[in-house]
Amino acid sequence: MQEKNGVSQALSQNPPRHAVLLAAGAGSRLRAAAGRPKPLTPVLGLTLAERAVLFFRSLGVEHITVAVGYRAAEVQSHFRQIAQRHGVVVDCVEVPDWERGNGESARVAIRRLREHLPDAGARFWLAMTDHLFHGAVAQALLQRPLPDGAVRLAVDYRLDRLFDPQDATRVRLHKRDGELHILDIGKDIFGWQAVDTGLFLCTFGLLEALEEAAAAGQHGLSDAMRLLAQRHKALAGRIEGGWWLDVDTPEALQEAERRLLAQERGKAHDGPISRHINRPLSRLISRFLSRWPITPNQITLFSFALALFAAWLMAQPGWLWLALGGLLAQVSSIIDGCDGEIARLKYQRSEFGGWLDAVLDRYADAALLFGLAWHAAAATSGNGLDGTAMLWGFLAIIGSFVNSYTADKYDGLMRQRLGAAAVQRFRLGRDVRVFLIMLGALLNMPLLALAIIAIIMNAEVLRRILLFRRAAASG
Amino acid sequence: MQEKNGVSQALSQNPPRHAVLLAAGAGSRLRAAAGRPKPLTPVLGLTLAERAVLFFRSLGVEHITVAVGYRAAEVQSHFRQIAQRHGVVVDCVEVPDWERGNGESARVAIRRLREHLPDAGARFWLAMTDHLFHGAVAQALLQRPLPDGAVRLAVDYRLDRLFDPQDATRVRLHKRDGELHILDIGKDIFGWQAVDTGLFLCTFGLLEALEEAAAAGQHGLSDAMRLLAQRHKALAGRIEGGWWLDVDTPEALQEAERRLLAQERGKAHDGPISRHINRPLSRLISRFLSRWPITPNQITLFSFALALFAAWLMAQPGWLWLALGGLLAQVSSIIDGCDGEIARLKYQRSEFGGWLDAVLDRYADAALLFGLAWHAAAATSGNGLDGTAMLWGFLAIIGSFVNSYTADKYDGLMRQRLGAAAVQRFRLGRDVRVFLIMLGALLNMPLLALAIIAIIMNAEVLRRILLFRRAAASG
Repeated sequence: MQEKNGVSQALSQNPPRHAVLLAAGAGSRLRAAAGRPKPLTPVLGLTLAERAVLFFRSLGVEHITVAVGYRAAEVQSHFRQIAQRHGVVVDCVEVPDWERGNGESARVAIRRLREHLPDAGARFWLAMTDHLFHGAVAQALLQRPLPDGAVRLAVDYRLDRLFDPQDATRVRLHKRDGELHILDIGKDIFGWQAVDTGLFLCTFGLLEALEEAAAAGQHGLSDAMRLLAQRHKALAGRIEGGWWLDVDTPEALQEAERRLLAQERGKAHDGPISRHINRPLSRLISRFLSRWPITPNQITLFSFALALFAAWLMAQPGWLWLALGGLLAQVSSIIDGCDGEIARLKYQRSEFGGWLDAVLDRYADAALLFGLAWHAAAATSGNGLDGTAMLWGFLAIIGSFVNSYTADKYDGLMRQRLGAAAVQRFRLGRDVRVFLIMLGALLNMPLLALAIIAIIMNAEVLRRILLFRRAAASG
Repeated sequence: MQEKNGVSQALSQNPPRHAVLLAAGAGSRLRAAAGRPKPLTPVLGLTLAERAVLFFRSLGVEHITVAVGYRAAEVQSHFRQIAQRHGVVVDCVEVPDWERGNGESARVAIRRLREHLPDAGARFWLAMTDHLFHGAVAQALLQRPLPDGAVRLAVDYRLDRLFDPQDATRVRLHKRDGELHILDIGKDIFGWQAVDTGLFLCTFGLLEALEEAAAAGQHGLSDAMRLLAQRHKALAGRIEGGWWLDVDTPEALQEAERRLLAQERGKAHDGPISRHINRPLSRLISRFLSRWPITPNQITLFSFALALFAAWLMAQPGWLWLALGGLLAQVSSIIDGCDGEIARLKYQRSEFGGWLDAVLDRYADAALLFGLAWHAAAATSGNGLDGTAMLWGFLAIIGSFVNSYTADKYDGLMRQRLGAAAVQRFRLGRDVRVFLIMLGALLNMPLLALAIIAIIMNAEVLRRILLFRRAAASG
């Protein structure tokens, strides 16, 4: 359940504004571990209920109908808190006979939605609260328009990558006229090719099928889908990327956290130090921090304060303070990765947050280099600061600045010419800078570190100027 | 004849690729002054012929048919040079009877174009070589589609702003069904409301009218337009902004230079010092420089070198060098305005040029502040540099840099919230910075200048952070 970015334009042009969430089940396997209703199970700082709501909100949903059953009051009050916190309308409906099956919960919830929705031809999402989805799963359902009266289910053909193959609901499919039709669905069917991810894009045709199945004494969602399949109204969307997970067991819960954190790997603009050293550590810290109500901007400010303190430490005379400051600088650089990670993990991304982070990074960079230069200048001179050290410090600061100043344009050009991988490989950024500062401090060679940073960063600026000139000349 | 930006999207979506330029006349009034054919008359470093070609190129024209007559070989060879230099196809056609009138030149040139153009329904521009147009004039012709067989002439209702009212061709108009129809056109008509700017958007209907008029012994463009007017095929586009000029006399030539330079006034992101001090001076310099084959990037590099020299001068001990360096810094800041002015005046704008200017400005800013800090730090300390002065210098550098780093985003937000005027009024930029540096140097108060710049620039960053946070919170 991540990333607004992963969703196609088709969605943003005409996104379904409604969703139905099934949160009525007992979830006995997970509950045994903690004693709370399953939707209240926390995953990296957000409950399953909260993740489900925020996932739909990231898809543009404004109104969510929730079927509650087991320990209804508790679950309902939790959803009410979520609704208030995140500005989404949540309408809880109690399902008296929820134990009959998930079809019964779906039937009651969709009937409630139908009463509230004047548009009989509307589309809406349907999912279980205990499923996590990457944005690409939703995308798979929006590739083609959904015909009136039909339902489209996201299905996964990547059977080798299933987390719990035994527990999966299987789907038999047939492609006709470019459209993927569901022929059969269930836990024990034969001749199947893919599995049910648990995310549906629906019309009210599903309600009719659910009513019909219920009248026949069948109370599973799969039963209604089989009825629709007979009328060629059960369609599928094949997911190509991303992941989904049915969080049924403590093991699946661990896997969910692992996958959410793994998404933080390999961000396009991470440099080499960031990828190999900072990110693995910052993910560990983020995993820990996610459990607390700490905002990304608080992490940004903390990391900034740490960098300023590190700069001040480095400026003090004596190798011990210099080395300690250098280490702290690297720590602040690692923590600096957590703000973005937490923001993505907890659906707290904001343009302001990203911008503030970038601005404070410029201040932190300059302060660290100035601290290092001050140490070098004071160490080599008895009375007053040494000019050579200050000059190298100045060159390191201006070179670093202009690298950041030109980074967006450079990344854009590189991506356009060589693809995202090239940007990553060639990027000389903050991660490298701070790492060199730490090395210079630890080895007690501040002047050498400044000179290296100054030369590397300014040479990189010169390289970019020549590169842009060439790009401009070639059209 | 300026500014690609002034042209509407309608144009860029389906711009006419062809144009016809009339360059056959003798232009006796202007020729008397210089003895060369009129299209070769230079206006701020570009000949009228070159300005006409570049104007059409800025509108997306790829192929220009030029009617030559008076001193045809000379004019033709000049157009051939222009074509080579600017990558436009120019097809010159000699008009034997050019002295009959501009209708004859138009007739021969359009017939030539017709032979080369397979598409009988094509649209093309038509203008005299001795007219200068602001981009907004072309825009006025692209507001509505041009019906088959018709011609649309840009007309100006702003009679109080005409440069040479006596010489204007007058137009009587009538609005019907939202379309502006030309009823009559000529130098001596009555009941007119607007004047002919000299820019036409045409179909080959004009050629038929020209042939018909010629057969009747009439050889003026206006004669053909009157024929079209009788058939309701002569339309007009009313210009709303921008300017045009018929460069017929030495006085008009002066006016042309004045208007081209005046366009450089009031750029949206000019700060107060720039508007009131730097721009008036840089326009004078640009007027001079435009006559030489100096490129905008050469000006950028020269201004940068000057700033580095100024920084070095300021760093020397003694008030004299400090003051001289400060003055030179201001001079470099003034010259720094010329690169963009020359680029716009001579159709040499490039994305790379603007980017290079911004990058080198960051280096120049930092160098000037470092030079000032060095002077202050050396002056107050006998042996080695004074730490306080270096610290203020550092704060001034980082504050200035982050101001530039956040400028684009700030300008965007301000424009969105308060309009372009607000951006101008509140902008604390490079012009203010360099001016304060000069003042500090002249008054021999480098430390005070650094402290003021440091405080102002960092306070401005803090203000922007709070502003963005508020903007983010409010939606």
